[in-house]
Amino acid sequence: MEKIRVNTGRKYDIFIERNILSSCGQIVRSVSNAATAAIVTDSNVAPLYLQKVKTSLEKEGFRTVTFFFPAGETSKTISTVTDILNFFAENSMTRSDIAVALGGGVTGDLTGFAAAIYMRGIEFVQIPTSLLAQIDSSVGGKTGADLPSGKNLCGAFHQPSAVIIDPEVLKTLPSKFFSDGMAEAIKYGCIADESLFEEIKKGINTENADSMIYRCVDIKREIVEHDEKEKGERMLLNFGHTLGHSAEKLSDFTLTHGEGVGIGMYIMAKSGEKQGVTEKGSSEKIAELLKKYSLPLSCDISLQDLCTGALTDKKRSGSNINIVLLNKIGSAFTKKLPVEELYDFVK
Amino acid sequence: MEKIRVNTGRKYDIFIERNILSSCGQIVRSVSNAATAAIVTDSNVAPLYLQKVKTSLEKEGFRTVTFFFPAGETSKTISTVTDILNFFAENSMTRSDIAVALGGGVTGDLTGFAAAIYMRGIEFVQIPTSLLAQIDSSVGGKTGADLPSGKNLCGAFHQPSAVIIDPEVLKTLPSKFFSDGMAEAIKYGCIADESLFEEIKKGINTENADSMIYRCVDIKREIVEHDEKEKGERMLLNFGHTLGHSAEKLSDFTLTHGEGVGIGMYIMAKSGEKQGVTEKGSSEKIAELLKKYSLPLSCDISLQDLCTGALTDKKRSGSNINIVLLNKIGSAFTKKLPVEELYDFVK
Repeated sequence: MEKIRVNTGRKYDIFIERNILSSCGQIVRSVSNAATAAIVTDSNVAPLYLQKVKTSLEKEGFRTVTFFFPAGETSKTISTVTDILNFFAENSMTRSDIAVALGGGVTGDLTGFAAAIYMRGIEFVQIPTSLLAQIDSSVGGKTGADLPSGKNLCGAFHQPSAVIIDPEVLKTLPSKFFSDGMAEAIKYGCIADESLFEEIKKGINTENADSMIYRCVDIKREIVEHDEKEKGERMLLNFGHTLGHSAEKLSDFTLTHGEGVGIGMYIMAKSGEKQGVTEKGSSEKIAELLKKYSLPLSCDISLQDLCTGALTDKKRSGSNINIVLLNKIGSAFTKKLPVEELYDFVK
Repeated sequence: MEKIRVNTGRKYDIFIERNILSSCGQIVRSVSNAATAAIVTDSNVAPLYLQKVKTSLEKEGFRTVTFFFPAGETSKTISTVTDILNFFAENSMTRSDIAVALGGGVTGDLTGFAAAIYMRGIEFVQIPTSLLAQIDSSVGGKTGADLPSGKNLCGAFHQPSAVIIDPEVLKTLPSKFFSDGMAEAIKYGCIADESLFEEIKKGINTENADSMIYRCVDIKREIVEHDEKEKGERMLLNFGHTLGHSAEKLSDFTLTHGEGVGIGMYIMAKSGEKQGVTEKGSSEKIAELLKKYSLPLSCDISLQDLCTGALTDKKRSGSNINIVLLNKIGSAFTKKLPVEELYDFVK
């Protein structure tokens, strides 16, 4: 079993092992004296893994209760968070009880957010079941929900008590969502690790993903430790995300997060090359990799609309927006741009 | 002008001065470089003080936008918080902008909570206009909203950037709400300061409240500095609150917070005397003071129902509940009780 210690304000461990799901209860018990564990999961994941997790938790003496919601980004609203909070209260959850997020990024973000604000904060554990959640959203303590005006516009920084990653569950992930996660893996290669980028080029699948998952999580750990609240370095993780979030939202979430991020990375790499700050050929390398994992390079939303949609993004600060650019594959930097110049910069 | 520095995770100052409202913009500017200040206020306070605050903020170069909601505890819901968040987003508020809570406890709690979770946290300033908010809820960083199951069941610890207290505004406060605040002042006397208790006995009104406000705020500051996240000492501030919250809620908020707390304090003092842990005569002293400020000693909800209603309270921890008892006027302690023994303890 691989174990990564994350030294944020609250310190916690990330456990990575095939078939670890069957013994998740032991890990949860090692971090919590809770009487009740409230599992939050969605309509896709529950039929596959709920029973296994429930059994393991109950074996360790937890009373379990389960909250279900319809799978998909459209559930990522304050209304769902409110339903979770009411569910916690109706089941007499106290400050010493624990929430367990079993699912993809939406599940982790909603559960973590509900845990952050229920009674002003209870503990929670992440059991991410999508590649995207395993390598990105389950690590680092960002939780939240969407507002009608934009993605993740409300939320909290709330670190989990543990993250339990079982690469074996990726075998039931539809290939579209495997690609979704690969876009974030490609991002880690772009911003921090050329050798990871090369590794991904050789071909990653559900059988051999373990070391890539480990590497991605470890990159994220390092960045989050340096900058837990995203004042600086952590912004690098947003490479491709400003226009990516906009694309996701303007497509009414018919584009996945990874598809949006892929499109955003490709645009930013091309823009960086045009401005002479990114090594020539980088965008072409990214394009190759996106295509290899069936990710699109563009969408039918105009660049002008993508830029307008990005203006409600959190990465905006006053009349400026922070964008992330590459020096070359493996190295990135942030740049502050007046919001009105974004379109000219990327067109 | 009196100034109290609060040394919590985020350090901030509390300013107390008559007519300080007219220059509140200067204080907000001294703590924030925001372009936009979003004022959140209710239907009672807006006609009285909004224009003064708006003018002062605009004089300091803030663009102001104002969110209004109907006055009263029934507005203290996630639905109102969601409306505030959407209002922030629609007005293109960024992470560097600031929220201003202008009103009583409900306004401060809702605004602080919205500020805590908008884009995972923006700054806010408290301008409390009720006695209750001036001496209690605006200080210490507790923010939140009610759930159908109970008061303040969701929220966040989020310290303000400044608290601006103008005792002059108490002159427009209906006497029922002056009494509401006096219950909390009596509480500070009970748990921490016998001389404050005696001072209150001499008679406090809107003309001479300044030094009492200062003393209450300073007691709260000291406790909050020692225990920002309510792991121990801060629980003392909950004297009278376990049954008080239950009374408020079961009366459908026809009882004010202070009325509920007064009833709760009187019951706990009598119970403490009966158990031999509280100095004899303490409950009688409390009763006298409550009557002096037109606060009830009891309500038409049965003690059994008050105890049942308290079981969803946050002060519960697993199968125990933390109650606060007096040694004597001026000194308090907490006691952990199995939840099923609460009724027997207080009956």
